[in-house]
Amino acid sequence: MAMHELLFTNVNLATMAPGDHAGSYGELRDAALAVSGGRISWIGPRSGAPAAQRVHDCGGMWMTPGLIDCHTHIVHAGNRSDEFESRLNGATYEDIARAGGGIMSTVRATRAASEDELLAQSLPRVAALLAEGVTTLEIKSGYGLDESTEAKMLRVARRVAATLPVNVATTFLGAHALPPEFAGRADDYIATVCDMIARTDADAVDVFCERIGFTPAQTRRVFEAARARALPVKLHAEQLSDQGGAALVAEFGGLSADHLEHLTPAGIAAMARAGTVAVLLPGAYYFLRDTTPPPIAALREAGVPMAVATDSNPGTSPMTSLLLAMNMACTLWRLTPQEALAGATVHAARALGRHNDIGTLEVGKRADLALWRIARPADLAYAIGFNPCQAVVNNGVLRAPMVSLSG
Amino acid sequence: MAMHELLFTNVNLATMAPGDHAGSYGELRDAALAVSGGRISWIGPRSGAPAAQRVHDCGGMWMTPGLIDCHTHIVHAGNRSDEFESRLNGATYEDIARAGGGIMSTVRATRAASEDELLAQSLPRVAALLAEGVTTLEIKSGYGLDESTEAKMLRVARRVAATLPVNVATTFLGAHALPPEFAGRADDYIATVCDMIARTDADAVDVFCERIGFTPAQTRRVFEAARARALPVKLHAEQLSDQGGAALVAEFGGLSADHLEHLTPAGIAAMARAGTVAVLLPGAYYFLRDTTPPPIAALREAGVPMAVATDSNPGTSPMTSLLLAMNMACTLWRLTPQEALAGATVHAARALGRHNDIGTLEVGKRADLALWRIARPADLAYAIGFNPCQAVVNNGVLRAPMVSLSG
Ligand SMILES: [Zn+2]
Ligand SMILES: [Zn+2]
Repeated sequence: MAMHELLFTNVNLATMAPGDHAGSYGELRDAALAVSGGRISWIGPRSGAPAAQRVHDCGGMWMTPGLIDCHTHIVHAGNRSDEFESRLNGATYEDIARAGGGIMSTVRATRAASEDELLAQSLPRVAALLAEGVTTLEIKSGYGLDESTEAKMLRVARRVAATLPVNVATTFLGAHALPPEFAGRADDYIATVCDMIARTDADAVDVFCERIGFTPAQTRRVFEAARARALPVKLHAEQLSDQGGAALVAEFGGLSADHLEHLTPAGIAAMARAGTVAVLLPGAYYFLRDTTPPPIAALREAGVPMAVATDSNPGTSPMTSLLLAMNMACTLWRLTPQEALAGATVHAARALGRHNDIGTLEVGKRADLALWRIARPADLAYAIGFNPCQAVVNNGVLRAPMVSLSG
Repeated sequence: MAMHELLFTNVNLATMAPGDHAGSYGELRDAALAVSGGRISWIGPRSGAPAAQRVHDCGGMWMTPGLIDCHTHIVHAGNRSDEFESRLNGATYEDIARAGGGIMSTVRATRAASEDELLAQSLPRVAALLAEGVTTLEIKSGYGLDESTEAKMLRVARRVAATLPVNVATTFLGAHALPPEFAGRADDYIATVCDMIARTDADAVDVFCERIGFTPAQTRRVFEAARARALPVKLHAEQLSDQGGAALVAEFGGLSADHLEHLTPAGIAAMARAGTVAVLLPGAYYFLRDTTPPPIAALREAGVPMAVATDSNPGTSPMTSLLLAMNMACTLWRLTPQEALAGATVHAARALGRHNDIGTLEVGKRADLALWRIARPADLAYAIGFNPCQAVVNNGVLRAPMVSLSG
């Protein structure tokens, strides 16, 4: 074999690779990891490390797979701090709706923004995630609710990946809310959404299935349109009420069911059978002051993989820290730090259908890596508002974590 | 008057100065602010700005007083992520105590660390606060519980201020916990603490008054020792139970009563009469999954100034983001974003007895300023895990917010 290109040595690895027993970080201390052609080409004890063209001494730091935020609405225009403030000053949801607030204010702002404006507004939020070791990011559409704006959002999502060192998985979420043009005609809007799916170039399709969103029957129509394109599906399911969404997305072999505060045993069983990932979004639970946690113990018991994501969005989770989402998953829902890290690496990769390519430190996987100045892996979920990321490797290219943006 | 040294122009000010009505940010849009000799020397509309030796165009950003974190235990050795992980893996508090965990593990680590080690471990945490616009920081002792280690902690606190661009207020907290050397002899330890107070060079004195801390009678003895030195007092009060601590610290004309989840109407009335600040610590409430919020509405009604701080400490609030503490105060306790910002500026200054010098943008005050790329002041409390700080001014000296640390 040719000489390895780059060798990270004097490093402790949390490989997150499925190993001897569940609940392990896959720890390999005093190790080395080599990279060639953008892939991990060797892993083992430092003492046995192969030669390489360049050697990077990590000074005893920890290395994990690059983090993966598998559920975001991070491309959008404006924010909703005005609503946040109004509510805290006593305005009711009705007052805010009357004043044109809520999701439709984000839809109006996103429709009105030029593609360049939308990109410029989204980049600082993405940069905040990347500074914490995120190397892959899912981005949904869903604030256009018309074909041209939905397509504009997805173009911006791809431009994020062209501008910053991150891989982006795009998701079409036309069925996020009912646009005002279709008031009282939800089924007609769903027909339009299915039409858009016939032409979308997104990587996956998502629906907001909820009393205040779309019905299971409407969700099924969207999923059938996705199946006709061979696009994988996922679902905003059981956040505010049990709609049977988890079982529905599992029936379609879906990648993930997300939120899940009102998930039932039947939903869990269906997800376990289908291999559908439970994507946990503690930021929304926190921000909405929800009091019903997802059934973590039952998901664990059933062996359903649990991912953790930010749900970064202006209305219900204005969060741009995946480390903080990990802390919230532990603090509020009693995930272990190991489960939280698996939720932001190996299981998040599965939620994007990319588990053969990313999410663990294993030979052959893409060299997306994060280096941390920490005493132990549990530090990542323990600290609140502290970023110990010292460097990131994207596709084998080493960078400092702070992404500087002009302007 | 001589020409001003530095002029910030094209800037929106949130002066936080007591003005027309409570609940105001003291907004001055399209303004300018001049600095001379480390002090604010002029404030007014941009159109009327005076000449200055240097002019800094802020491009429409917002400026606030530099943030003030008025309650931290940020100088300590080690962390307690191992305990965090053990608990989430099912260990009981008893198991952890048997394994030598809890506050005594931090005391052992802090006693064992050299002064240089203690400084090196503390600086990255402080740097995280400073990156978010913090210009003044309170630091407590309390992990030594013997005179030499308490003094070492306070020396390190002063070295933090000598190393990084931040002003530090030091607080002697010898009465934080009962050291093992005094097991069963709390009153003897209090006598020793009073002895240490006779020699301390800290700026203030604090006590942990609680069923698991020290009694009100013991607290009174410590406060009397502080009074003999003319040192101001503050108190960890009513966090887990009502001990009458707020009334006690108010009786001594104390700067602040901190935590206050179990504060009573009598305590509120005493604080209002004495002008004692309520220091709110939502990070500990969040991390401990407490469910009894402090009586925010009653404090507001009584006109007690409310500060917001991180309580940065390894056991109950491993938090190094004051912006996040502000968000938690709003999200969990329904402070308004204006109250949260006042809590990290003008009222935090009062909690340190420094309200004549810092905490607002007013002519004559120290030029400790933060510049933010935000649409409106509410953005600071709204975003979760996002840092919009673009620059910081300490004593009139402009810096980028990111403090880089060698090593
Ligand atoms: Zn979502
Ligand atoms: Zn404290």
